[in-house]
Amino acid sequence: MITEIKRKVGYLAAEQIKDGDVVGLGTGSTTHFFIEKLGKRIVDEELKLLGIPTSYQSFFLAKDARIQITTLEEHDVDIAVDGADEVDPKFNLIKGGGAAHTLEKIVDSSASKFVVIVDGSKMVDKLGNFPVPVEVIPQASRTVRDQLIKMGGSPTMRMAERKDGPVVTDNGNFIYDVKFSVDNPKLLEVELNALPGVVENGIFTDIVDEVLVGTEKGVETLKK
Amino acid sequence: MITEIKRKVGYLAAEQIKDGDVVGLGTGSTTHFFIEKLGKRIVDEELKLLGIPTSYQSFFLAKDARIQITTLEEHDVDIAVDGADEVDPKFNLIKGGGAAHTLEKIVDSSASKFVVIVDGSKMVDKLGNFPVPVEVIPQASRTVRDQLIKMGGSPTMRMAERKDGPVVTDNGNFIYDVKFSVDNPKLLEVELNALPGVVENGIFTDIVDEVLVGTEKGVETLKK
Repeated sequence: MITEIKRKVGYLAAEQIKDGDVVGLGTGSTTHFFIEKLGKRIVDEELKLLGIPTSYQSFFLAKDARIQITTLEEHDVDIAVDGADEVDPKFNLIKGGGAAHTLEKIVDSSASKFVVIVDGSKMVDKLGNFPVPVEVIPQASRTVRDQLIKMGGSPTMRMAERKDGPVVTDNGNFIYDVKFSVDNPKLLEVELNALPGVVENGIFTDIVDEVLVGTEKGVETLKK
Repeated sequence: MITEIKRKVGYLAAEQIKDGDVVGLGTGSTTHFFIEKLGKRIVDEELKLLGIPTSYQSFFLAKDARIQITTLEEHDVDIAVDGADEVDPKFNLIKGGGAAHTLEKIVDSSASKFVVIVDGSKMVDKLGNFPVPVEVIPQASRTVRDQLIKMGGSPTMRMAERKDGPVVTDNGNFIYDVKFSVDNPKLLEVELNALPGVVENGIFTDIVDEVLVGTEKGVETLKK
């Protein structure tokens, strides 16, 4: 079952954390288990750790797991562990299904080691089946949408489920989910961020050190 | 059917709007129909109107309805039309199921006339079956929660449906839904806002001029 696979991958990643580490805490259903297990290790092994959350979600999970929370202002990140929506063979990622990719990219890219944890369904030959999340300043909604279409994308504003208004990110912004043919991830990543009003996009290139992939058969570790 | 009732009430309220009015545009499923009908009247009757939205939701609905949008900086509000989650016999309200009560209160209370539109299920003898929404600055989550409990409330942080993180309001804040025995709405409204970290709460007192109540039988207009 997919939840069991996510748990296994998350727990295994937590075993990589060493006493004294400053840990980047990713967002999402797989990192949920990573944070949970980290909390157990803190209790069982009396580990001294500091955590830097990538969202309100991981902030509250970390608090519940009794992980001491700190900030990028105060500390460098030794190891960040985060999920992904797609991973290609070159370890390029699409992230942002949880609307937290902006802070995730800040934390994950600053880490000495960045480990991605996913179930096997996230491994793809080519990025782009999953739409690229693009965080946008509200006042730039229309101008950014027009630019995204000019770039060949098909943007849809992410809407909240309970009401017919937009999802508001932790930073007070909107998200466009943009279908793209992602032929050159690095180029697209740079071009998207060049649009005035775009805060950050969900393509992550050149920062992943390791991918843990969970399947029915077990967890495979892919190294760069 | 409830949707049909909401449509009738929303449409009837739209008939109250006069050429040249600056209109406060409420948030929610009933005001949705009000905004829709206003857009039709603008086309059919060539009305000149200005709209002041109370949320990103009503902003985008107003835009789709081709209502010219303006701001409180530039204009006073002639008439505001908004929904409610509970209305008591003295026209006290609980609002905020749509997480927009802060801007709603700003706009609605500034209007020369404030009309509430609801279906009959929202009329109550006493407020408090619906929990009171309280918008809170994220850094004050714990301290405000502790104060709310001291005041006799039972707060639950409103969570996003797709992820296990909190709902973020249009203003970048959190919402506590707080069960209270609301014996004195005005006093509770004032006491809640006095807590450091509380931006605004969903109890509205002393500002409603008229309530349109829709039922299977038709729409009743209640005046103060």
